[in-house]
Amino acid sequence: MNPLVSFLQCLLIAISLFITPPVSASPLNIPRLSPTGGTFEHGYYFTDGQPKALSNFDPNDFETFYYKQTLDHFNFRPDSFSTFQQRYLINVKYWGGSNVSAPILAYLGAEAPIDDSLSSIGFLSENANRLQALQIFIEHRYYGKSIPFGSREEAFQNASTLGYFNSAQAIADYAEILIDVKKQLRAEHSPVIVIGGSYGGMLASWFRLKYPHVALGALASSAPILYFDNIIPPEKGYYSIVTKDFREASETCYQTIKKSWSVIDEIASQPKGLSILSRKFRTCSQLLTSSVLENYLMSMYTGAAQYNRPPSYPVTVVCGGIDGVSHGNDTLSKIFAGVVAYKGNKSCYVNEPKNKSETDVGWKWQTCSDMVIPIGISNDSMFPAYQFDLKDYIETCKAMYGVPPRPHWATTYFGGHDIKLALSRFASNIIFSNGLRDPYSSGGVLENISDTVVAVYTKNGSHCLDIVGANTTDPDWLVKQRKVEVKIIKGWLAKYYAELQAYSNNKSIPL
Amino acid sequence: MNPLVSFLQCLLIAISLFITPPVSASPLNIPRLSPTGGTFEHGYYFTDGQPKALSNFDPNDFETFYYKQTLDHFNFRPDSFSTFQQRYLINVKYWGGSNVSAPILAYLGAEAPIDDSLSSIGFLSENANRLQALQIFIEHRYYGKSIPFGSREEAFQNASTLGYFNSAQAIADYAEILIDVKKQLRAEHSPVIVIGGSYGGMLASWFRLKYPHVALGALASSAPILYFDNIIPPEKGYYSIVTKDFREASETCYQTIKKSWSVIDEIASQPKGLSILSRKFRTCSQLLTSSVLENYLMSMYTGAAQYNRPPSYPVTVVCGGIDGVSHGNDTLSKIFAGVVAYKGNKSCYVNEPKNKSETDVGWKWQTCSDMVIPIGISNDSMFPAYQFDLKDYIETCKAMYGVPPRPHWATTYFGGHDIKLALSRFASNIIFSNGLRDPYSSGGVLENISDTVVAVYTKNGSHCLDIVGANTTDPDWLVKQRKVEVKIIKGWLAKYYAELQAYSNNKSIPL
Repeated sequence: MNPLVSFLQCLLIAISLFITPPVSASPLNIPRLSPTGGTFEHGYYFTDGQPKALSNFDPNDFETFYYKQTLDHFNFRPDSFSTFQQRYLINVKYWGGSNVSAPILAYLGAEAPIDDSLSSIGFLSENANRLQALQIFIEHRYYGKSIPFGSREEAFQNASTLGYFNSAQAIADYAEILIDVKKQLRAEHSPVIVIGGSYGGMLASWFRLKYPHVALGALASSAPILYFDNIIPPEKGYYSIVTKDFREASETCYQTIKKSWSVIDEIASQPKGLSILSRKFRTCSQLLTSSVLENYLMSMYTGAAQYNRPPSYPVTVVCGGIDGVSHGNDTLSKIFAGVVAYKGNKSCYVNEPKNKSETDVGWKWQTCSDMVIPIGISNDSMFPAYQFDLKDYIETCKAMYGVPPRPHWATTYFGGHDIKLALSRFASNIIFSNGLRDPYSSGGVLENISDTVVAVYTKNGSHCLDIVGANTTDPDWLVKQRKVEVKIIKGWLAKYYAELQAYSNNKSIPL
Repeated sequence: MNPLVSFLQCLLIAISLFITPPVSASPLNIPRLSPTGGTFEHGYYFTDGQPKALSNFDPNDFETFYYKQTLDHFNFRPDSFSTFQQRYLINVKYWGGSNVSAPILAYLGAEAPIDDSLSSIGFLSENANRLQALQIFIEHRYYGKSIPFGSREEAFQNASTLGYFNSAQAIADYAEILIDVKKQLRAEHSPVIVIGGSYGGMLASWFRLKYPHVALGALASSAPILYFDNIIPPEKGYYSIVTKDFREASETCYQTIKKSWSVIDEIASQPKGLSILSRKFRTCSQLLTSSVLENYLMSMYTGAAQYNRPPSYPVTVVCGGIDGVSHGNDTLSKIFAGVVAYKGNKSCYVNEPKNKSETDVGWKWQTCSDMVIPIGISNDSMFPAYQFDLKDYIETCKAMYGVPPRPHWATTYFGGHDIKLALSRFASNIIFSNGLRDPYSSGGVLENISDTVVAVYTKNGSHCLDIVGANTTDPDWLVKQRKVEVKIIKGWLAKYYAELQAYSNNKSIPL
């Protein structure tokens, strides 16, 4: 496994949540956030440049399997019965076995090949031993080696083949595989804890809600399940937190960024303005429009905020560059210094050539089908304001795929509106973990819904921080967050085993 | 509305749950149970022959609406976006209104046109006034006037058009309609209680499990949600209870029936035996095989047991006929006397001509797709033994529709195995009501799962008895069962309104 690929994984999970607002909607002030933006290729903010190996992790401990998965769980048309090979990996090294119904930690893959998660998600390998748990990583349909229709080319041809690619089908896949694995291991009574991050975190919480008979509990890390259907105001979410992150890091940095957009626009509007900007930012090729530069910068700021991780804290790094330029220098020199500080010394910046990743392609479809996350920008942020326009969004998706998204389906199927009212007396055993510096925490569950559906967040945390591999340099609040999560999960397991015991002692009727 | 049609409704709901075991599986001893068996055309056991009007029910109080329903909720193929008109009826006469978030009683239609339910299901009209509730009856897709593809002919053509006809799609329909209705009435905070009987009862309980954000609670009457995937042994269920019902009514009657099958077989094997049987049972046309007679009798016994209702108690009626023949008469004369007692004096019996109902056609597909209910007959019942053979079942369905059923899907999606273990700390607000004389109670939930997921059953009750219209002649235990159910529902509502109040007073965050 390519270590670079693997240690970039949680970045991928999460960055890919970003939505690209419709290009046509507005000429300049739209944040175009690339799912695998060039910003992240160094994994900079993970470990100051050095990929860290996960503790207790050895890829050789995992065995790969394929499950013959049903293409369409919710239809009985002849073509629904087509199957595809869905990949999952199992590690039994620490498992206590079926005799004692030892637990299963199941990582629910998200919008990337599962390989990437295997060596970057630390939560499973770090806890398998103390929980005597089996580890399973399941790949999401349409990613990696879990592609229907025989090939990526066929599968991604058009809406007729992509239509089966959605979250309801994905969690049904997970249900089938987990039931099958437990059956094969004769471990029907082994409790399953599902774990996921970002989109995968949403899947984990939804899995517990829809399949409580398959999973005993869920750890949903940085899952913005309230970022649908205007449960939170589109303008009050993501970009407000990015702004807050920068402002808290440095008032002058925030002011510089806030000012920079009009400076860019002004220069761009001059004759030869784009050449000036291209030189100023040492672009890899001549800018044809200033929006390329603006999107690049926005992507950098949001990436830095979302993955504002210890020990380096990328927001601090960017602002260090911006603020470090000697007083009196012009705004764009400061901004460029921020770029260099963050990206490192490169021969050129901004429009670097790159290939579209699986996540680019796959997540684009997902955001144009059931995962419609409305993100706007309020006019009190450090970014150009942008009002999310659902109508434009729908039209753009239709133009791309020939079918419209279903922006209300996520809340129809999974809920979200008045979530505390709906779930305070229903459901149990879900941890919604967040870091409040993560822009996506604005769509997260930040309040306990009940005794067992709980919010565990850190003030200084960023996206998915609790489930990626632990470092010796991790601050206390992060170490504590992970400990709290494990303690809660242990509590679920203890209650379950007590009930299982009582149940086994008294199993006369099929209840 | 045809009163005969309407008052036969709960019969239809429930009889139609019966599965016709594969004809090819066994020559003689298979119970072939017709969904709308001729046994029931008089609605005999409801009210001693007289259809009763529901109290507080006036069809003119209902207004009919159509919702533009999505054909496939779980797919984004272009054809998934097709829509059809789905019918629902609303009665606001007793509704307290959106100002006070007054409740909504929602009847979830099952495998019949909704018209039939309207005037036979008493639970809504009898409680709307005291609960200040709005009443809504929603028709199930592919029945009545809620037919996709423009016509029944098109919709029922083959598996390609029938594929969308399943329970997961049906409850998603109900979610969309209930959300839409609440929005239109500006009654977003009005609690919804879903009600259903038999298959519709399963839908009601599953609806609460899958859409807790749409329904606050469910009354699932005679819902055999454990009759899947061998959760209960196929041979220990339905026919064992029919047998018990008859034996409790009369030991001699039970003995006569138990003996009759070999007598029929013996006569049938003689030269001109079928002519003898045809004369003996005054058949409408000459029997071509004795299995026609046997299936007719089995259908009569099971119907009598399932709808063993006060005040007449059909099992007692049948046994009265059988036992009433003067001593010494032969077995088949006794059996025929049972037929006449139950069916009344008719010019002929057994193979009466009849048309296939919508329920016949629709439920047949449903049992060959996701609703695979394995019913066998043990060798200690009063019927010829029959071992349920899943392989045969699958082959028969495949031969009929070109696609196989998915016998494990119901438990994968809805659960059922170890239900108490799975749901004791998850879910709330479901009443599983049953009558223990109902053969389908063998697949019902007969034990409290938790404080709020409860079993309310009566020793002498039959199928769906609690939700059909009340009669002045109803026995105390039935009156009490209904009262208990209403009291529980009132408790859910009271708790909900207290939480809504607290929630409204403190609504600062989107939780």
